[in-house]
Amino acid sequence: MELVITNGTIVNASETFRCDVGVQNGRIVALGTDLSGDENLDATGKYLFPGLIDAHTYLEHPSHGTRTADNFFSGTRAAACGGVTTVIDVAVQGEGGSLLEAIEARHALAGPQAVVDYALHASITRFVPETFAELPELFNEGAVSLRIDLARLAAHEADDGALLALLETAGHEGILVVAQAENGAITERLQARALADGRVSPEHFPGAHPAFAEIEAVQRLLLLAEAAGVAIYFSALSTHGALVAINAARANGQPVYAEATPSHMLLDSSLYGSLDGQHYIVEPPLRVEADRAALWRGLTMGSVQVVASHHRAFTTAQKALGDSFATTPPGIAGTETLLSLLYTHGVKGGKLSVNQLVGAVSTNPAELFGLHNKGAIAIGKDADLVIFNPNDKRILTASALHSEGGHTVFDGWELNGYPETTISRGRIVYEQGRFTGEKGMGRFVGRTA
Amino acid sequence: MELVITNGTIVNASETFRCDVGVQNGRIVALGTDLSGDENLDATGKYLFPGLIDAHTYLEHPSHGTRTADNFFSGTRAAACGGVTTVIDVAVQGEGGSLLEAIEARHALAGPQAVVDYALHASITRFVPETFAELPELFNEGAVSLRIDLARLAAHEADDGALLALLETAGHEGILVVAQAENGAITERLQARALADGRVSPEHFPGAHPAFAEIEAVQRLLLLAEAAGVAIYFSALSTHGALVAINAARANGQPVYAEATPSHMLLDSSLYGSLDGQHYIVEPPLRVEADRAALWRGLTMGSVQVVASHHRAFTTAQKALGDSFATTPPGIAGTETLLSLLYTHGVKGGKLSVNQLVGAVSTNPAELFGLHNKGAIAIGKDADLVIFNPNDKRILTASALHSEGGHTVFDGWELNGYPETTISRGRIVYEQGRFTGEKGMGRFVGRTA
Amino acid sequence: MELVITNGTIVNASETFRCDVGVQNGRIVALGTDLSGDENLDATGKYLFPGLIDAHTYLEHPSHGTRTADNFFSGTRAAACGGVTTVIDVAVQGEGGSLLEAIEARHALAGPQAVVDYALHASITRFVPETFAELPELFNEGAVSLRIDLARLAAHEADDGALLALLETAGHEGILVVAQAENGAITERLQARALADGRVSPEHFPGAHPAFAEIEAVQRLLLLAEAAGVAIYFSALSTHGALVAINAARANGQPVYAEATPSHMLLDSSLYGSLDGQHYIVEPPLRVEADRAALWRGLTMGSVQVVASHHRAFTTAQKALGDSFATTPPGIAGTETLLSLLYTHGVKGGKLSVNQLVGAVSTNPAELFGLHNKGAIAIGKDADLVIFNPNDKRILTASALHSEGGHTVFDGWELNGYPETTISRGRIVYEQGRFTGEKGMGRFVGRTA
Amino acid sequence: MELVITNGTIVNASETFRCDVGVQNGRIVALGTDLSGDENLDATGKYLFPGLIDAHTYLEHPSHGTRTADNFFSGTRAAACGGVTTVIDVAVQGEGGSLLEAIEARHALAGPQAVVDYALHASITRFVPETFAELPELFNEGAVSLRIDLARLAAHEADDGALLALLETAGHEGILVVAQAENGAITERLQARALADGRVSPEHFPGAHPAFAEIEAVQRLLLLAEAAGVAIYFSALSTHGALVAINAARANGQPVYAEATPSHMLLDSSLYGSLDGQHYIVEPPLRVEADRAALWRGLTMGSVQVVASHHRAFTTAQKALGDSFATTPPGIAGTETLLSLLYTHGVKGGKLSVNQLVGAVSTNPAELFGLHNKGAIAIGKDADLVIFNPNDKRILTASALHSEGGHTVFDGWELNGYPETTISRGRIVYEQGRFTGEKGMGRFVGRTA
Repeated sequence: MELVITNGTIVNASETFRCDVGVQNGRIVALGTDLSGDENLDATGKYLFPGLIDAHTYLEHPSHGTRTADNFFSGTRAAACGGVTTVIDVAVQGEGGSLLEAIEARHALAGPQAVVDYALHASITRFVPETFAELPELFNEGAVSLRIDLARLAAHEADDGALLALLETAGHEGILVVAQAENGAITERLQARALADGRVSPEHFPGAHPAFAEIEAVQRLLLLAEAAGVAIYFSALSTHGALVAINAARANGQPVYAEATPSHMLLDSSLYGSLDGQHYIVEPPLRVEADRAALWRGLTMGSVQVVASHHRAFTTAQKALGDSFATTPPGIAGTETLLSLLYTHGVKGGKLSVNQLVGAVSTNPAELFGLHNKGAIAIGKDADLVIFNPNDKRILTASALHSEGGHTVFDGWELNGYPETTISRGRIVYEQGRFTGEKGMGRFVGRTA
Repeated sequence: MELVITNGTIVNASETFRCDVGVQNGRIVALGTDLSGDENLDATGKYLFPGLIDAHTYLEHPSHGTRTADNFFSGTRAAACGGVTTVIDVAVQGEGGSLLEAIEARHALAGPQAVVDYALHASITRFVPETFAELPELFNEGAVSLRIDLARLAAHEADDGALLALLETAGHEGILVVAQAENGAITERLQARALADGRVSPEHFPGAHPAFAEIEAVQRLLLLAEAAGVAIYFSALSTHGALVAINAARANGQPVYAEATPSHMLLDSSLYGSLDGQHYIVEPPLRVEADRAALWRGLTMGSVQVVASHHRAFTTAQKALGDSFATTPPGIAGTETLLSLLYTHGVKGGKLSVNQLVGAVSTNPAELFGLHNKGAIAIGKDADLVIFNPNDKRILTASALHSEGGHTVFDGWELNGYPETTISRGRIVYEQGRFTGEKGMGRFVGRTA
Repeated sequence: MELVITNGTIVNASETFRCDVGVQNGRIVALGTDLSGDENLDATGKYLFPGLIDAHTYLEHPSHGTRTADNFFSGTRAAACGGVTTVIDVAVQGEGGSLLEAIEARHALAGPQAVVDYALHASITRFVPETFAELPELFNEGAVSLRIDLARLAAHEADDGALLALLETAGHEGILVVAQAENGAITERLQARALADGRVSPEHFPGAHPAFAEIEAVQRLLLLAEAAGVAIYFSALSTHGALVAINAARANGQPVYAEATPSHMLLDSSLYGSLDGQHYIVEPPLRVEADRAALWRGLTMGSVQVVASHHRAFTTAQKALGDSFATTPPGIAGTETLLSLLYTHGVKGGKLSVNQLVGAVSTNPAELFGLHNKGAIAIGKDADLVIFNPNDKRILTASALHSEGGHTVFDGWELNGYPETTISRGRIVYEQGRFTGEKGMGRFVGRTA
Repeated sequence: MELVITNGTIVNASETFRCDVGVQNGRIVALGTDLSGDENLDATGKYLFPGLIDAHTYLEHPSHGTRTADNFFSGTRAAACGGVTTVIDVAVQGEGGSLLEAIEARHALAGPQAVVDYALHASITRFVPETFAELPELFNEGAVSLRIDLARLAAHEADDGALLALLETAGHEGILVVAQAENGAITERLQARALADGRVSPEHFPGAHPAFAEIEAVQRLLLLAEAAGVAIYFSALSTHGALVAINAARANGQPVYAEATPSHMLLDSSLYGSLDGQHYIVEPPLRVEADRAALWRGLTMGSVQVVASHHRAFTTAQKALGDSFATTPPGIAGTETLLSLLYTHGVKGGKLSVNQLVGAVSTNPAELFGLHNKGAIAIGKDADLVIFNPNDKRILTASALHSEGGHTVFDGWELNGYPETTISRGRIVYEQGRFTGEKGMGRFVGRTA
């Protein structure tokens, strides 16, 4: 065997055990004891996790007249250094274009650059018959979901009738719908009013995105999705009220899933009043304690299935663009800190078992997005692995990270546990703080049945 | 005293007692025993109710290229013959016009024609600053509510942001908002699809107006109203699901009220498949047993406060207009049968006390719409009275009714109890099956604080 | 006419109007203008309320080796001075005795002493066939309810099976069940533990009566009552959690009613830590802000129908009896302050209309307990009346009150509005701070169909 | 290696993969390809599941004057033939005895007889300080839970206060409480009434165990457990209403788990009216369609975590004992049919993935009951394995089963999928319809941290 990791504590979503792991041709081929390979990595006293799937990243993504700071190279480099071996990026349908063209455009950017594997959400902006017609082919091509940005429904010249029609088509095709849920007409009205009143600083940002704008969109989509017979995955959910609605739907048997981000689980809206408030501008906004508690509770109890970074890195210069919170590019970098933050605050914080952690960042996204060669340490799966040291205590600093954004909102936070080595399809792409991967190593992975 | 009604059983919303009632100058001036007047009416063995307030009528109302069959004369004549002494009609803002103009236009029609008193809802169609600015004056002029037709929000070039702004203004002014709640984008899409598929007969009508379209609109408005701090009155509510949402809001202390119609409480959507299915086309559509049970339960338990007729009469010829359910003018006549149907099925049916009946059709609308001289039999109130014979059993026939529509969907139904005499401001306008009122006797009554 | 009250503002639960009220033979015989009687009371600028029905008092009631400080004379004297013209006292079945005997024993005490009218709850302690058999006769004799003290179920040698059987019998007979709901096995266990640990001071009292002990008993009784088909009236309800369960049952159509006391609506459990903590010992205990807010919200929205004092007066000496919170006689005096506190904090506090106030303290208990000659100002009703001055501002002091307890927990509180005159069956029993009634004037009033 | 299973499709709760499995010394030591052992079993085209853990069996269990028909030999033989490699039996505290003595008594029966491994619930009947004191040692000895039979609380001379104290002790010790939840006072009352009325046949059995008796007990225990800070596992849950309460508690973050049985998921209470109605007598009773749907929905959505057989076998002669449903020994045999029924109706029925199936019958009970060497196919775990043929269609007959009860309520049902081989700690105990194990091979497995 090319590579053997010896004596680690293997953590899958539903079991923990200790053994050696043998890798050949980028796949896991042996689990056992006394294995030996051409190369051997000792994981004694360490966890061995399946590589993370970061269910939402925005690499080289146009936004507010600029682009997210990370392209597919720097973004997946940061991912690799954080234990992430698959990123799912968002392919947004262009003006007048098709979803397939959007997917192709992403491939053109990602293919030569990606260090780890990537998958793609197909994000609709044109609710026209042509788009509806390409859905079956889209999913043959491996898109992992059909994404809808509810906040921009009107901007996309769609109404709830068009939305229902799309949901029905998706339901008919068995396609999972990913929804970013906020009532855009509400937030635009409130934003315009704030700007007109001269309330332009970041502290006025959350007022333009009240909790009820999210709750409304979630309640509405739950009703429409039930009527349409389609499963919904709410991305970057942020409010207690929305989870109340989701819990009720799930108790009723409706197939609904929810995702949270470490930012929304750990950070408070009071930060918008800090000196660097613009760095916290993200959609949806940071919320209050009751919301954060609800997200953690949902994760513990199983109504939140996935934690993803929604990595949207911007430099401090980019974050200073424009003259109001409305022109600040929204986003927070996070793919590299996803695992260590969740381990520190979830597992060490007593809220999650280590198996639940693996479920939330690897197994569940693999299952929900049909990436069946990922998400577990098992024979035949891709050798995407993280050696994680639970005893590595450190203080997080932006300078130690690998994003071109050059900034982290968690700067100075203490971490209890950190990835030591990341392996992508059997190749070591990160080791002991050092990036060891190469551009273009990553491959596209598509949804399979 | 000009008129004394002797020995009736007086029924107010919160008390029942037996006495004589003395009337002078159109007002109740004495309650006692052994009263005697210029004219005396014996009510021994009869109930004496405060005159009904029919909270929603549509008289001389343009619809689908025609007009409702009743003008203010024939409509209020029918009302008077059913025990209704106040109708609240709907003044719809015209294209390019103001709400005050709409109110004036209604006055021009109603003033010379109305037999009994009338009040007016002001129904907004233009969400522009000019309309917002006239709200305070509008309510000085006595409009009883600001009405919003959610189903036509897009047709009125408004979105949820504009809706929120309107709700905030209404909340600030302390104005009650009456909402006809249905998601129009959904119903239009489904209607268009049905028509395109050739599913044009009445049996396809309810499919274009599914329960979730109402539930969605109610849930959305509840969230926006809570944020805006405004009280909402849902008119012609029809679904169990909407009442579930309303109950939750009320348990949380939100000021929310609901109204039902006898049609939605008594008739089933299976009727759309009958030969005269077009006569049952009404918005919202008739629903199923679980919905009807929920409306009755809400009325019994206090979460539905008002029952109104939503009298929209059309002749059989008018109902045959057009080539699909979408061109059939929607509406059911009902002001004349409101009281006897509710008494028969509510009180005799064991679901309501006679006091709850009076609350639902007289006291509660008086209170909610600020018609403080109406709604009770008490000194100083307008002498709007109904002598009701609980032992008058009859079979309802369209020919016995007084609407120009000439049709009732309750034809052939048995009634247990019927109004014997209706008195409007001290004048007998109906007696023993005979209309005795006159055009123009009715006056406008405005909301007072 | 013997007595006319002129020009007051009459307040019934569902209407407000201004007129003169004529009284003859203890009944209201005329409502009108320009009335004149042998005696005339001017009520210009004052409210005229129907006399209050205090739905729960405990006069001459044995408790913890002593008796409540007020007998039927002093207790109804205090009531009269507070605007209460009917008290409903509790007749508790004695050891080995029958419920009818308990009723008779109360009559023996009340008949010669009562200043205002009284009614009786029949409180069961022996769940034996003999008791079940006397229920029909009991209600022929006019008991207003069958009361169950759930906290003492085991003490009464009954279990949930016996409780179910009783509820079924009551349901079959159409008898309203009044429940004081707390899980006694829980509270006894916690109390015993506190005492064993030497935690004997009042501050340890609420810990022995946790909210969940009430919530549990309410949830259990709701389920059993639904199965048994019987209506339940929860007396002295105190927790938000219990109201959540009650709201759900009501939304489902179950006939359930709730009563609160001013003490539980206005006072906080932190008072148990004050120097005179024993004066706040009452069952159930005072709770926290969220519970008080829920009670007010319930009253505003209609899920709490009645406010009663649960007048259980003890002198300061009695309250000092014993050596722990468990031997302190539980109870708070309150019949004389019921009206002014509720007016001050409810009506002036913006939470209740004056009609809702009258509903809660007069009309609703009259309706629920079948006292059909009470609860409204209407022809033929008993002339039980309160002239209430809404502009009478004063500071409440124990010395101004008429209970033999000599103490009020509201000492020093500001009142906005106070009763000026109380009239019982046409006789003035209180006027301008002076008690003017006489022992034995009060009569028993029984439930009628 | 002693044994290799080649080419099966490995199913764990969170992943599926194909490989060979190598066994040595009763443990899984290798997962990989091209493995070879002393003995080789080909599993091509078959599933390889971790051996089932049947979370509730009642072997050699006294009941109603008789004993369950299966002792530890015949019961575990039946288990082995159905793919079950661990049974968790119930050790009931004897009169005057201790829980540890009950555990020892079970060991004496099971040790020499068990074919597969066994674990033990410790079922309390004496709520005395001595019992409370032995809890820590009990769990050092490996009992997997503290079981409470709520229906027999009074029979065990305990009340809700004693229950609370026990829950607090369990919470303090971190012990999982298993609850069989029914209100015994209710069911005894209803049963006594039925018998007194001569309603003695099986069709009268469910009436004595109404749904609300379960819902009440569940709601009560949820409140007490939340106060006590202890996790609850509801065994053999049967009603929709109870799941509604459990869902609410879980949404609120309370650690609560639920278990269902195939009997309650598949059989209807109408069967009590059949000729062999006594065979369906089981506690709790079979319910109605809405309850069954709720159990399946709970299993799909994650609020029901475990499916267990509650194997209580009785012969037809035993089931005919006595003269009423109350003397019929309650119980249904089921350990041998657990897997195939759940596969047929859950997986083939489209309600469960094969991973969810494994979670419900193996991984989740292993996790919840601390049997960390069981529940997954992973290196180091016990080699408890089932080769399952998804294409084995057969008709179930009692004669093909291995219980001494000689009866199955599923006689004649079609099965789609059946176990082909069962391996316990590396030894084949069942193969192709033939039992190949031996008495005494099974070992006790205790809970570990």
